[in-house]
Amino acid sequence: MSFQNPVFIPGPTNIPENLRKACDMPTIDHRSPLFGHILHPAREGVRKVLQSDSAEVFIFPATGTGGWETALTNTLSPGDRVLVARNGMFSHRWIDMCQRHGLDVQVVEVAWGSGIPADRYEEILTADTGHRIKAVLATHNETATGVRSDIGAIRRAMDAAGHPALLFVDGVSSIGSMEFRFDDWGVDVAVTGSQKGFMLPAGLAITGFSTKAMAAIDTATLPRTFFDVRDMAKGYAGNAYPYTPAVGLMNGLNEACKMLLEEGLENVFARHHRIAEGVRAAVRAWGLELCANDPSVQSDTVSAIRTPEGFNATDIVTHAADRYGVAFGVGLGEVAGKVFRIGHLGSLTDVMALSGIATAEMCMADLGLDITLGSGVAAAQDYYRRHPAAGMKGPV
Amino acid sequence: MSFQNPVFIPGPTNIPENLRKACDMPTIDHRSPLFGHILHPAREGVRKVLQSDSAEVFIFPATGTGGWETALTNTLSPGDRVLVARNGMFSHRWIDMCQRHGLDVQVVEVAWGSGIPADRYEEILTADTGHRIKAVLATHNETATGVRSDIGAIRRAMDAAGHPALLFVDGVSSIGSMEFRFDDWGVDVAVTGSQKGFMLPAGLAITGFSTKAMAAIDTATLPRTFFDVRDMAKGYAGNAYPYTPAVGLMNGLNEACKMLLEEGLENVFARHHRIAEGVRAAVRAWGLELCANDPSVQSDTVSAIRTPEGFNATDIVTHAADRYGVAFGVGLGEVAGKVFRIGHLGSLTDVMALSGIATAEMCMADLGLDITLGSGVAAAQDYYRRHPAAGMKGPV
Amino acid sequence: MSFQNPVFIPGPTNIPENLRKACDMPTIDHRSPLFGHILHPAREGVRKVLQSDSAEVFIFPATGTGGWETALTNTLSPGDRVLVARNGMFSHRWIDMCQRHGLDVQVVEVAWGSGIPADRYEEILTADTGHRIKAVLATHNETATGVRSDIGAIRRAMDAAGHPALLFVDGVSSIGSMEFRFDDWGVDVAVTGSQKGFMLPAGLAITGFSTKAMAAIDTATLPRTFFDVRDMAKGYAGNAYPYTPAVGLMNGLNEACKMLLEEGLENVFARHHRIAEGVRAAVRAWGLELCANDPSVQSDTVSAIRTPEGFNATDIVTHAADRYGVAFGVGLGEVAGKVFRIGHLGSLTDVMALSGIATAEMCMADLGLDITLGSGVAAAQDYYRRHPAAGMKGPV
Amino acid sequence: MSFQNPVFIPGPTNIPENLRKACDMPTIDHRSPLFGHILHPAREGVRKVLQSDSAEVFIFPATGTGGWETALTNTLSPGDRVLVARNGMFSHRWIDMCQRHGLDVQVVEVAWGSGIPADRYEEILTADTGHRIKAVLATHNETATGVRSDIGAIRRAMDAAGHPALLFVDGVSSIGSMEFRFDDWGVDVAVTGSQKGFMLPAGLAITGFSTKAMAAIDTATLPRTFFDVRDMAKGYAGNAYPYTPAVGLMNGLNEACKMLLEEGLENVFARHHRIAEGVRAAVRAWGLELCANDPSVQSDTVSAIRTPEGFNATDIVTHAADRYGVAFGVGLGEVAGKVFRIGHLGSLTDVMALSGIATAEMCMADLGLDITLGSGVAAAQDYYRRHPAAGMKGPV
Repeated sequence: MSFQNPVFIPGPTNIPENLRKACDMPTIDHRSPLFGHILHPAREGVRKVLQSDSAEVFIFPATGTGGWETALTNTLSPGDRVLVARNGMFSHRWIDMCQRHGLDVQVVEVAWGSGIPADRYEEILTADTGHRIKAVLATHNETATGVRSDIGAIRRAMDAAGHPALLFVDGVSSIGSMEFRFDDWGVDVAVTGSQKGFMLPAGLAITGFSTKAMAAIDTATLPRTFFDVRDMAKGYAGNAYPYTPAVGLMNGLNEACKMLLEEGLENVFARHHRIAEGVRAAVRAWGLELCANDPSVQSDTVSAIRTPEGFNATDIVTHAADRYGVAFGVGLGEVAGKVFRIGHLGSLTDVMALSGIATAEMCMADLGLDITLGSGVAAAQDYYRRHPAAGMKGPV
Repeated sequence: MSFQNPVFIPGPTNIPENLRKACDMPTIDHRSPLFGHILHPAREGVRKVLQSDSAEVFIFPATGTGGWETALTNTLSPGDRVLVARNGMFSHRWIDMCQRHGLDVQVVEVAWGSGIPADRYEEILTADTGHRIKAVLATHNETATGVRSDIGAIRRAMDAAGHPALLFVDGVSSIGSMEFRFDDWGVDVAVTGSQKGFMLPAGLAITGFSTKAMAAIDTATLPRTFFDVRDMAKGYAGNAYPYTPAVGLMNGLNEACKMLLEEGLENVFARHHRIAEGVRAAVRAWGLELCANDPSVQSDTVSAIRTPEGFNATDIVTHAADRYGVAFGVGLGEVAGKVFRIGHLGSLTDVMALSGIATAEMCMADLGLDITLGSGVAAAQDYYRRHPAAGMKGPV
Repeated sequence: MSFQNPVFIPGPTNIPENLRKACDMPTIDHRSPLFGHILHPAREGVRKVLQSDSAEVFIFPATGTGGWETALTNTLSPGDRVLVARNGMFSHRWIDMCQRHGLDVQVVEVAWGSGIPADRYEEILTADTGHRIKAVLATHNETATGVRSDIGAIRRAMDAAGHPALLFVDGVSSIGSMEFRFDDWGVDVAVTGSQKGFMLPAGLAITGFSTKAMAAIDTATLPRTFFDVRDMAKGYAGNAYPYTPAVGLMNGLNEACKMLLEEGLENVFARHHRIAEGVRAAVRAWGLELCANDPSVQSDTVSAIRTPEGFNATDIVTHAADRYGVAFGVGLGEVAGKVFRIGHLGSLTDVMALSGIATAEMCMADLGLDITLGSGVAAAQDYYRRHPAAGMKGPV
Repeated sequence: MSFQNPVFIPGPTNIPENLRKACDMPTIDHRSPLFGHILHPAREGVRKVLQSDSAEVFIFPATGTGGWETALTNTLSPGDRVLVARNGMFSHRWIDMCQRHGLDVQVVEVAWGSGIPADRYEEILTADTGHRIKAVLATHNETATGVRSDIGAIRRAMDAAGHPALLFVDGVSSIGSMEFRFDDWGVDVAVTGSQKGFMLPAGLAITGFSTKAMAAIDTATLPRTFFDVRDMAKGYAGNAYPYTPAVGLMNGLNEACKMLLEEGLENVFARHHRIAEGVRAAVRAWGLELCANDPSVQSDTVSAIRTPEGFNATDIVTHAADRYGVAFGVGLGEVAGKVFRIGHLGSLTDVMALSGIATAEMCMADLGLDITLGSGVAAAQDYYRRHPAAGMKGPV
């Protein structure tokens, strides 16, 4: 049953038909020139999606978590201090990884539902006159809370402090879906995966390194092999990989970049915003609130929706799966049981979004919440009607 | 875009994942035993779906229209009289085919929206004391009007008249979705295609012949080669086809039969009824009426919905495609411009049905009809919540 | 097992990866403009493959046999005389179809292994001063014997006789693989299927009609509905079909035409000739002879190979399937048991051809024929080495 | 072109049709019970393929290289001593990884073409009375040289020395193709990837941990996160992954295990041996020698073939790709230019193997080596004829 309904988890996304076909490739010799015709355009495509002229793109057969490890182990040494905010489960996990790799982690605790406080970063960086902080970590879009932070503001904070630390950005659930400006924001390492904005199956860790990050590689002493970008760079130069690449996924990534760039990144971002606005209109119509505590931080790729006190939000997710064959996301960590999440990134139409909204309201009603059937749908319909999708004809 | 949304045309249906894969087959030798392992189970599966113990099943690489021609040309001779009711576009076309093949067609005109009048058939057959009528034709489900006729009643009418004519039933949009009893109803030739209840791409004309129909073959003189069931029968006996079969589609048909029989035909019919009831609840909530003029004839596979006088119903279909990337069916023939159709057969979930209903109401509102957004959705949600899908857990 | 080995039947062919993907399409609305974007380019592509500027192309969800029926029933009337040579199983079957449709068939019997005798046609046509012969039928490539006839010569014979008959050509196993000149040869109806030169699954009857053939439609009285080109033409004008089209296969056909035209028809023909020459070299090395009794008629798409007296050639085919999982073609009709066939049309490389040759020689040796292992392979290797495939680098 | 020919690289292998389809999955919620129905059977299937009753199987979205890192980082601490033989490129790379992770690596240099000297291991381990060696590393099948080492002998050496070190085995190009006895050989960590014996695309690092290896995890201090088996174990317990799994590949792995176990591991091993014997017969017929210097170490998954002095073996690989669209493997490291490799693992038939052999001999002849065309093919044909494939009928 579930193969028929769209998924509304915040990744992996629904996979467009042509990307499924691009990934489903017969075996080729990954050491032949044919592979080069996939590898190089895919790397170039990712660079453009990052809106960068100069990022070195490294793509590992792994996941976003492997991308985090790539960022850390290639640029830092044991004992290096890093600055990072915890405002949700994914920033929490990255912090945990830093600690397990022997880094000295300075954590800024932030309410789950808030964005990263650039002003607090600025204070800390300004105070760090000895430049002991080697890297600033930022989760662009907290998938757990549906909160998008302002990376440009963090860059400005770093510049205001005159601080030379590297800036690492987890863009797993933002890149390819929401504005991401590698060059303009002075990002040093950007991290994402194949299964979010690129709309592919999971299996690729995708990273971009700035010139400054590349320079840091030589002195970094954290142990690394699988995720060593030096081996990867050497492989690329010879048209190959240091080990066996995931050729079909790389082919899919190449195709995904073509799709996104052909649509135009601004259009891609506008499309995500539009779908998200419909979902948010539904949430308001239900009389519920988002976990994201301010419109300025509401994510266009995932909405974490708070349910009333005393109600276990996870029941909605279980019920939706059991009763309607639809997948939503549960709350994680601090907001477990308090929110359920509707993923709305990647390949999604009005019609698909409405079916998710309709399902959510059936579930809430089934579970005894005071929800008027059709109310969220009507609010979203109203929004979608008034804001026609690009490429679709406007209202009559 | 359209690849992402379900289709709501009354066939071809949405194709389940496993059936797409079953059809997508590399080439095999269609004269090898391997093909026999597809052919014979597929024929046997169709026989069971027809609820018959004895029907000879013939499957042509063609469409339902080819199935009609198969029924006529294998059993009748030029000048033979046939009795048939016209109550929609598809019965109209079958009549046209009879005339072009030189048959003497006795047409019973019926209002589009009504079912076949078994009592009128009985009168005519009773009056035909010389048994000039060689075949009675019946369109089980008029796809154009969403009207299901009572084939059992027609059989009873024939029996009451003591008439020996053959009974041909077009079950294109009913077989595999709604109750169809080949043996119990005394059907002599049943006709369908791959793209409806079997949820496959178009490309197979599927027919079942009774013993009586098989006997008629020898004396029938209408010219036939491609659709000659004698060649087909001879081929089957040798594990093959008289020409190249559509192997992948046959493999898909075999798989489709397995799916339907494993679910259980009664469950399949109940599932279609349930989805259809939700759509009908939405239609009522919109304040509109079905073309089918009586609940007893309302089809569980397609609903033809009348729009208000002065409104061109076809605009809804065009608008849905242009603006929302969703496919509905237009009105055909006498009801062109007066109805639009929502197909709800085959592979469909609550969630998919709700997205179609939500789209229809956006379209009607966009085009100025007085429709309350969310109203049809709420009515269908209410029905689906109170009647959980089989295999899904019930209300909490 | 058989999915892994290439097939060596004379159609369906091995299906290229991209064509399998083109055929494996989700459902679209076949009455929407999207279908027009498949239909019209596919028809245009076929026209170009036919090397015609003016042919009207009609594509039915059927097979080549349906294409024959399309040619006959749309242009002829009961009792019309047709002239046709019988030089193999497929011409035999077309003759049978003519007879079953009530045509007056004048058969020229030809040895199986010989081509159609244009001079004999000329005599008959010249003698037919009353122009009772309405159509001349010719099987371009007799798939049963591996014999290619000279259609240009038949046209010249017709012209020399000043005879106005229509010229129908069965190009099922030639079109898209060997030279076929619809316009230059004055073909009136050309017939093929999807599963040969177009390298697709079976399921499409593909026909081209000349202006003269189109004019014959109005007076032709053979009954037809499914194969009526008038309905088809009317459908096309409205961007649609008179019934449900096989959308995925049409999409595949469109893609196949693009592939063939991009490669260039002359290159396609040269490629087939080259592969065939390797197979013929192997046959000579084995000390065997082709059924085709003269090099000028040897087909580039299929070789029928005569085995020694007293040996049942069909055993080779059975043994190849049972023991090596490889499909060859059996002899049919008059040459049953006397020949086995290696199909070498469509998507085939040197490497694939060599594996078929290697298998054939293992089978012959297994079955006691005096065949030196490796001999046919070596002869084909020698040919392929000296004649590099286009697009591949030449000898060092 | 290359999509049509089999590949003859030593992995990734040709992918069977059903495994491609198993991998090509629409998105499901990887936190739903549905994923558990893939995950647990896949792990159980791998355990059986390892011939183990107790191995804990961990599957990472990575490659075999990631599997090596998993083995090391989960069980060892910086400065730990490991014993390892270098007899080819892959053992060389694993040594390099150990060094980069700060291990104290005791290398036994072995001629490339020889197996791991169990007697030398025994001497070293016996001498290590203080048990400073924490792990013994062994590359079961050196993919670079086509050499299979005797892991049972290494275990006996360890036991004879009474040494408690862990035994890590790289079974990347052996597991699922050649005899591998996790329990009987007392393997502590076994490592492989999806793209070899499991016949899937690259993208999974597959590892098995013994109880003893699991116990070592708690004290191991090498940094790890992505490859931490503790997180993985915790995830599995909750029916999930610590990050997003590669669901489609896991589904393929589950299916691959079913295929292998249904065929029977002994039959799988016999099948590989049989195909390999044909290739080795061809090599002898060519008058060439294998890199593997003794029949007892010749691998059944890959043959590295030495070419005459003064000839660059890599030219064969380049020429095969350029001229015939066929992929062989080049020599690596010490044997670069001296050998070319024919991979013969996974999904391969006689017919496919013969096409690779035929191609190799064309290439060698093209490049001026004194090779008789057809000679290797004939030798392999002779072997395959006398040793029919299991499931195929025997000689007539």
